[in-house]
Amino acid sequence: MNEVSHTGRPRVVIVGAGFGGLTVAKALADTPVDVTVIDQRNHHVFQPLLYQVATAALSPADIASPIRTILKGQRNTSVMLAKATGIDTDSGEVVAGDRRIPFDYLVLATGARHAYFGHDDWEAFAKGIKTIDDATGLRRRILLAFEKAEFETDPEERSRLLTFVVVGGGATGVEMAGAIAELAREALAADFRSIDPTHARIVLVEAGPRLLPVFEEHLSEAARCSLEELGVEVRVSTAVTGCDDAGVLLGDQRIGTRAILWAAGVQASLAGRWLGAETDRAGRVRVAPDLSVPGHPQIFVIGDTAHVLDMDGKPLPGVAPVAKQEGKYLAKLIRTRVAGGDLPPFRYRDPGALATIGRKRAVVQFRRLRLSGYLAWWLWSLAHIYFLIGFRNRLVVAMNWAWTYVSLQRGTRLITGSDPGLDQVASETAITKPHLKGVA
Amino acid sequence: MNEVSHTGRPRVVIVGAGFGGLTVAKALADTPVDVTVIDQRNHHVFQPLLYQVATAALSPADIASPIRTILKGQRNTSVMLAKATGIDTDSGEVVAGDRRIPFDYLVLATGARHAYFGHDDWEAFAKGIKTIDDATGLRRRILLAFEKAEFETDPEERSRLLTFVVVGGGATGVEMAGAIAELAREALAADFRSIDPTHARIVLVEAGPRLLPVFEEHLSEAARCSLEELGVEVRVSTAVTGCDDAGVLLGDQRIGTRAILWAAGVQASLAGRWLGAETDRAGRVRVAPDLSVPGHPQIFVIGDTAHVLDMDGKPLPGVAPVAKQEGKYLAKLIRTRVAGGDLPPFRYRDPGALATIGRKRAVVQFRRLRLSGYLAWWLWSLAHIYFLIGFRNRLVVAMNWAWTYVSLQRGTRLITGSDPGLDQVASETAITKPHLKGVA
Repeated sequence: MNEVSHTGRPRVVIVGAGFGGLTVAKALADTPVDVTVIDQRNHHVFQPLLYQVATAALSPADIASPIRTILKGQRNTSVMLAKATGIDTDSGEVVAGDRRIPFDYLVLATGARHAYFGHDDWEAFAKGIKTIDDATGLRRRILLAFEKAEFETDPEERSRLLTFVVVGGGATGVEMAGAIAELAREALAADFRSIDPTHARIVLVEAGPRLLPVFEEHLSEAARCSLEELGVEVRVSTAVTGCDDAGVLLGDQRIGTRAILWAAGVQASLAGRWLGAETDRAGRVRVAPDLSVPGHPQIFVIGDTAHVLDMDGKPLPGVAPVAKQEGKYLAKLIRTRVAGGDLPPFRYRDPGALATIGRKRAVVQFRRLRLSGYLAWWLWSLAHIYFLIGFRNRLVVAMNWAWTYVSLQRGTRLITGSDPGLDQVASETAITKPHLKGVA
Repeated sequence: MNEVSHTGRPRVVIVGAGFGGLTVAKALADTPVDVTVIDQRNHHVFQPLLYQVATAALSPADIASPIRTILKGQRNTSVMLAKATGIDTDSGEVVAGDRRIPFDYLVLATGARHAYFGHDDWEAFAKGIKTIDDATGLRRRILLAFEKAEFETDPEERSRLLTFVVVGGGATGVEMAGAIAELAREALAADFRSIDPTHARIVLVEAGPRLLPVFEEHLSEAARCSLEELGVEVRVSTAVTGCDDAGVLLGDQRIGTRAILWAAGVQASLAGRWLGAETDRAGRVRVAPDLSVPGHPQIFVIGDTAHVLDMDGKPLPGVAPVAKQEGKYLAKLIRTRVAGGDLPPFRYRDPGALATIGRKRAVVQFRRLRLSGYLAWWLWSLAHIYFLIGFRNRLVVAMNWAWTYVSLQRGTRLITGSDPGLDQVASETAITKPHLKGVA
């Protein structure tokens, strides 16, 4: 079933509406091609701020926009909510369940998920954070730990409930640990009667010798100091050797905890497997210099699921600027090829890096600029608000941050969704016989 | 296990932190009693605006506040996240799973859920809206219907997907139908390529002879006209006789739909059953004039789970003003009794009623004032923002409404949570082998 009407113009199909895929779609607005964007969710997520949803500082809608809304002005573009399940390279079609979407150019921007270094059984206890549902799930887990601790009489279990272990010392792990520390020491400080949330223990574990390895060493050190001032225990050169329901194993040391937050490894989407292409050990497709898949000049892979080398021969990291620059290049390449021309290979320009530690500190590495502390935090805030898609979201995020900053409160501290831990106590439902209220 | 420390002061236990329970707790702030508030959720919900979460105009956090935050300033009050499962009237304890919470005064403010007039099997297809999770579930259902219709090739199924049936012509049903009509005709209008959301069919079904029976007849008529102008089909004197996966049965007529929204009947919580008390057919406890349970002078029931008569001998409706006035009375009664005195019976003062139809019209009935149309809508907006708990929420709601009003957009149009309809197509997960990223 060919669902995309054919106008005779080249059909560009983009799978995945993250930073990479969306950049391609937007840059093709005025190109004489028909664009179809396929995503398994109806919204684009600003992933770098997911940790703020998990720590109750922002609402999901503050950092997510419907893909249709972002692209509604582009008459050559349609959006399909569907989960791609494969690629038929012979017929030139994307397979999504029983649907087939034909393409002339295909862009795979299908991203990555967390990885557990071969220990997939850890996932049940050590949750990663890549989607809105991941973030609200983590928020429930963190807030419920405090609620359960308040009425826990066993001191050992109480201390497990008030211990949070963040695994992975990259930007996500550092930001997560800082945000949990502030949640406990500020927003929750006065809310409980039996426990003192400011005594919560937050441990950040990193296998490498220092935090934030993409930053220069003195900035890593500044980040570590800032975290320790917030009360975070930083453990570098420490590998996680086990995760279970009641704690985490670091070699022969065990830390009792009910909340392990995973910000360590990632693995690419299935795109490489769909294509039978050569991948690196993270599952990322080794692409040609024009980002096409060797042997398939019309199929391109970008973002977290592509293995692209920088000028020093090192693979580019899985961050938003890489995906966006690849997306921009690819849109230009498709536009040029449709017009009969060609382009030189893709080249990445490093825009620098930013990471924040709590509500007042950050580290910034931008061209020759190296900054840490308060001014860096302001730069970080402005940059993130600027890059958030949509005027409304920028305004709401700015307002929520201002509110959190001034009041130390967290406005979105809601425990939603089901929790077996709480529902187990419920043996009856709150429903009796009906009440005829004069209607229906 | 007695978990509440005993200071020697009377212990007031409040089950349920809705409008009623929370009013009691707040009014006891400076009374020499120890207050414990028990709720199965960590947040208070402003139920009258849940329909705006379901129709993507507001975020959950805009209309919900953590109970701990609301009560943090009251040193005599503690909050317990737990699901009450019974009352031991002999020992004077609330039972919550394996916990027991002793009381000297007990306030049951446990609310109500939807009722299906003995057809509990309809619940799977006709969803009600009482909690945040109900609202985000409905939002997913409504938004997914449009997404599925966009790529549906069978015209009959497509029309089913674009038909929304709201059952119940009280305030919730009227507001819901108006909001869905505006969502389809304004926010979504330009977002799709194959379907035209403005052609969506919205049907409001009411068994009684007119909408909004608590209003005067000319206001009911004004509401009907406003809804019809928005494109809603209003069917009064029409009873629902069946609900299934593919439609709703109205006598011998069938309307094909994938989304039935239930705003018809309610049934009280289990409080009456816990107490073995006399209840009406909606399960509401028939209380004494001082809101106590006959035979249990220290146990009180208020709000949607209490059957209280007005001066004409009719039971008071299940609305916020009733619960709040009962709560205020009860706090005063407890304060007076603790001091050795007593109070005359509870008397309800009707503050009037408000209902909104979309973004520009409402009906208002307040003392001698009768208003419909645009000015009524402004009154409705101000009243709702005023009564929303918490400064932050007021500001955010006002801003979101202003934004929706000016832009016709819906900022929170996110489909979250799992949907079997979409996941069925997915035969593989997006995970391959791990990527060792230098950490843990």
